[in-house]
Amino acid sequence: MDESIADAQQAIVTSPTPAREFRQLSRSRQRDVFFHLPETVQQSLVADLDRDGLQRFVRRLDPDEVADVLVLADEGTREDVLRQLDEDRQEKAAFLLEFSPESAAGLMHLDYVTVGVDQGIDAIARRVQRHEDRTGRLPTIFVTEADELIGELPGQVLAITDEEAIDLREHVHETPVVAFDSPDTEAVDVFRENPESSVAVLDDDGSILGVIYAEDLLRVVEEEAGETLYEFTGVQEEESVLDGPLSKVRYRYKWLIINLGTAFLAAGAVGFFEDTIAAFTLLAVYMPVVAGMGGNAGTQSMAVTVRGLAFGQISLSTGGRAVVNEVIAGGVNGAITGVLVAVIASVFNQSPLLGLVLGVSMVLNLVIAGFFGTAIPLVLDRIGKDPATSATIFITTATDVLGFFIFLGLARAVL
Amino acid sequence: MDESIADAQQAIVTSPTPAREFRQLSRSRQRDVFFHLPETVQQSLVADLDRDGLQRFVRRLDPDEVADVLVLADEGTREDVLRQLDEDRQEKAAFLLEFSPESAAGLMHLDYVTVGVDQGIDAIARRVQRHEDRTGRLPTIFVTEADELIGELPGQVLAITDEEAIDLREHVHETPVVAFDSPDTEAVDVFRENPESSVAVLDDDGSILGVIYAEDLLRVVEEEAGETLYEFTGVQEEESVLDGPLSKVRYRYKWLIINLGTAFLAAGAVGFFEDTIAAFTLLAVYMPVVAGMGGNAGTQSMAVTVRGLAFGQISLSTGGRAVVNEVIAGGVNGAITGVLVAVIASVFNQSPLLGLVLGVSMVLNLVIAGFFGTAIPLVLDRIGKDPATSATIFITTATDVLGFFIFLGLARAVL
Repeated sequence: MDESIADAQQAIVTSPTPAREFRQLSRSRQRDVFFHLPETVQQSLVADLDRDGLQRFVRRLDPDEVADVLVLADEGTREDVLRQLDEDRQEKAAFLLEFSPESAAGLMHLDYVTVGVDQGIDAIARRVQRHEDRTGRLPTIFVTEADELIGELPGQVLAITDEEAIDLREHVHETPVVAFDSPDTEAVDVFRENPESSVAVLDDDGSILGVIYAEDLLRVVEEEAGETLYEFTGVQEEESVLDGPLSKVRYRYKWLIINLGTAFLAAGAVGFFEDTIAAFTLLAVYMPVVAGMGGNAGTQSMAVTVRGLAFGQISLSTGGRAVVNEVIAGGVNGAITGVLVAVIASVFNQSPLLGLVLGVSMVLNLVIAGFFGTAIPLVLDRIGKDPATSATIFITTATDVLGFFIFLGLARAVL
Repeated sequence: MDESIADAQQAIVTSPTPAREFRQLSRSRQRDVFFHLPETVQQSLVADLDRDGLQRFVRRLDPDEVADVLVLADEGTREDVLRQLDEDRQEKAAFLLEFSPESAAGLMHLDYVTVGVDQGIDAIARRVQRHEDRTGRLPTIFVTEADELIGELPGQVLAITDEEAIDLREHVHETPVVAFDSPDTEAVDVFRENPESSVAVLDDDGSILGVIYAEDLLRVVEEEAGETLYEFTGVQEEESVLDGPLSKVRYRYKWLIINLGTAFLAAGAVGFFEDTIAAFTLLAVYMPVVAGMGGNAGTQSMAVTVRGLAFGQISLSTGGRAVVNEVIAGGVNGAITGVLVAVIASVFNQSPLLGLVLGVSMVLNLVIAGFFGTAIPLVLDRIGKDPATSATIFITTATDVLGFFIFLGLARAVL
C-alpha cells in the first residue's frame, strides 16, 4: 500500500480527534484511507465526524460506498445525510441500507440493466446509454429469457453491429447467482466455481436485486484469509494492529483464560507423576521437548487439513485416508526426531534407558498429533463449526496431556 | 465446491492410474477438476496422461489455460501437443509459455485490443468485432495517448452512439500496471490499490503484453492466504491434504528438526535449574502453564501484526506504538491470568509464595510475548523476509526460554 495512506491511517488512529485529521485530506484521499481502515476505527471516525463532515465525505461516493459508510452512523445522522444526497444516490443507498452488510446483498451494486434475449443490439445499446446518462456509471447487462436470468452479456458485444439478427445466447456468459440474504462468504464460494463472471444477487422470487463484481469479493476473501490466522491463534475478528492496549486486553483475555484451563489439564497430567519427577528430575528437563514437538506437529497437520477443507478437497466422509496418511507421517517424523533425542539423551545424560523412553514417547506423541490434527478439524467442519477456531485448543491439549502421560508414565514404568 | 468434483479429485489422487480416472470425465468436468487440483497432483497427472489424452484435454481450453497445463509437461510432449492446436491457440499458448508461471505474465490473458484516445466509437467497435471473429472471445479495450497507456474502456461505452464526438477520456478507467517479470503477488498488491479495473501487464519498454482480470488474482490471493497459515506452522507451500505419507514426511521433517533445536534451548533453560526442581518438584507441574500461556499470547500478537503488515497498516518505522500497546496489553492480560494462577496455587498447594512467583512470572512472560510477538514480524518484514515464516520459532523460543528462566529463577531466589 501507498506509504502516505499508511501514514494518514496512523495519524487518524493515534489522534484523539480523528475527524480533524480526516477532514484535512483531499476527498479522493479520504476515500482511499477510509475504506482501508479497520472497521472499529471506521466506526469511531464516523461517530466523531459531524453531519457536515460526513455529508461532504459521502457526497461523491458511489451508492454502495455511501451505504457502507452510513451503516456505521446512528439512525438520525443517517437519515439527515441521506436526505441531502442527489436523488439517484439517495434512493439507491437507502435501498442498499435495508440489507445486512454481512450478507450477499451487502456487497452488491445497482448498476445493471436487464434485457430480454430477443432484443436487438440497438435496443440494448439504448438501455445502456440511458443508464449511463442517468447515473454516470456504465451498467452490467443481464439477459433474461421468459423472465429467467440466463446470464451476463459482455459490453463488448455491442460492437457487433452486423445486422443479421445476432443470437444473444451465443455471447451470454452464464452468471452464478446467490440469494440476497445468504452470507457474503457464500457469494465467494459461488464465484469460485464460476470465476469468469459477475455474481447476480436474487430476491426470494428469483428477480435480480443487484450485481457483485470480482473486486468486491476480493475484500471478502482477504478478510476470510486474515480470519483464519486470527481464529488459529484465538484473536477476535474485529481486532487490528492499530487498536489501543485496552481493546486488545478486552479482545483476548477470555481466550487466554480458556487456554489457562487447558494448561491446567497439562499441569494435572504432570502432577500425576510428581513422585516420578522427584526421583528423576531430568524428566522435567525433557518435558518441554516432548510436549513442544507434539504441539508443532499437530498444528502442521491442522493447517494442511484446514486448507484442504477450504479448497473443498476433503470432508469427514472422504477424510479417512488423510487421517491414516497423517498418522503414518507422524510416526515416521516421530521416529526421525525421536532417534535424535534418544541419542542426545543417551550421550549427554549417560542414560540409554531415558533415551529409549524419550524416543518412544516422541513417536507416540507425533502419531497422536497427526490423528487429532486431522480428525478434529474434519469433525468441527462436519458439525458446522469453523475448523480452525477451537481446534488449536483441542489439539495442543491432546498432545500436551497425552504426551506427558505417555512420557512420564513410560518413565515410571521403566526407570 | 461441488461434492462430485471433490469425489473426482479423490478418485484421481488415490488411484495408481490417475490418467484413467481423468479420461473418464467429460471435457468440461476435466477442466473443473484439473484446475482445482494441487500442483503436485496436476504434475503427476500430466506426466501420466499420454499425448493423445493431453491433446484431447487442452484442445478447447483458452490459451492461458493451455499454457498452465503444458508448463507441467516435458518439453517434447509440450511441442507435440502445441503443434496440433489451432493456429490462434498455438501461437498464444507458445507466447505465454515463455514466461514464468509465478510471474505477473504467468497470470495474463491476451484478449485485448489497443485503441488511440482519438478514435471514434465506430472504429473501436470494428476492432472489437474483428478480435471476436478471429478468437471467439471478446477483448478488453485499452486506450493509449501518444503511445502511453491511459486506461481501460468499459465495453458498455460502445452503446454511446451519439455522434457528437465523445471524449474517451471521460469513460476511461485508470488501469494499474505491473511489469511482466514481477512476482504474481505484486499484481495482487497493484490491484488491491485500484480494484475497479483489470491490471495491464507491461513489457520493459512500456508496451502492453497482456491483461490480468480480478478473477485471476483471486486464486493468487487464496494461495497467499493459505500460505500464511502454512508459513505460520512451518508447512511447505506445495503440500496438500491429498499428499501421501512419505511426501508429508519429506515436506516436514526439516522444520521439525529445527523446532527440536529450539525445544532443546528450552530444555537447557530448565536444566539450569535442575537442583531447584529437585528440591521443589511442584515447579515442574506449573512449568507447562507459564510456557504455554507465553506461547499463546505471543502468537496472538504475531497474528495481529502479520495481518497489519499485510494490509499495509504498519511498518517497522511506524510500529513503535503498536509494540508499546502489545507490551501493555501483555502486562494486563498477564496480571489477569497471573492472579488466577496465583490463587489456584495458593489454595491447592497451600503455598502463597509459589502463587506469588507464578503470578509475577505470568506478567513478565506475557510482556515478553507482546514485545517479541510484535517486534519480530516487524523486523523480519523490514529485512525483506516473510513476517509469518520463521517468526513462530523465534517467538516460542523467547517465551519458552525466558519464561523458564524467570519462573525457575524467581523460584530459586524466593522459595
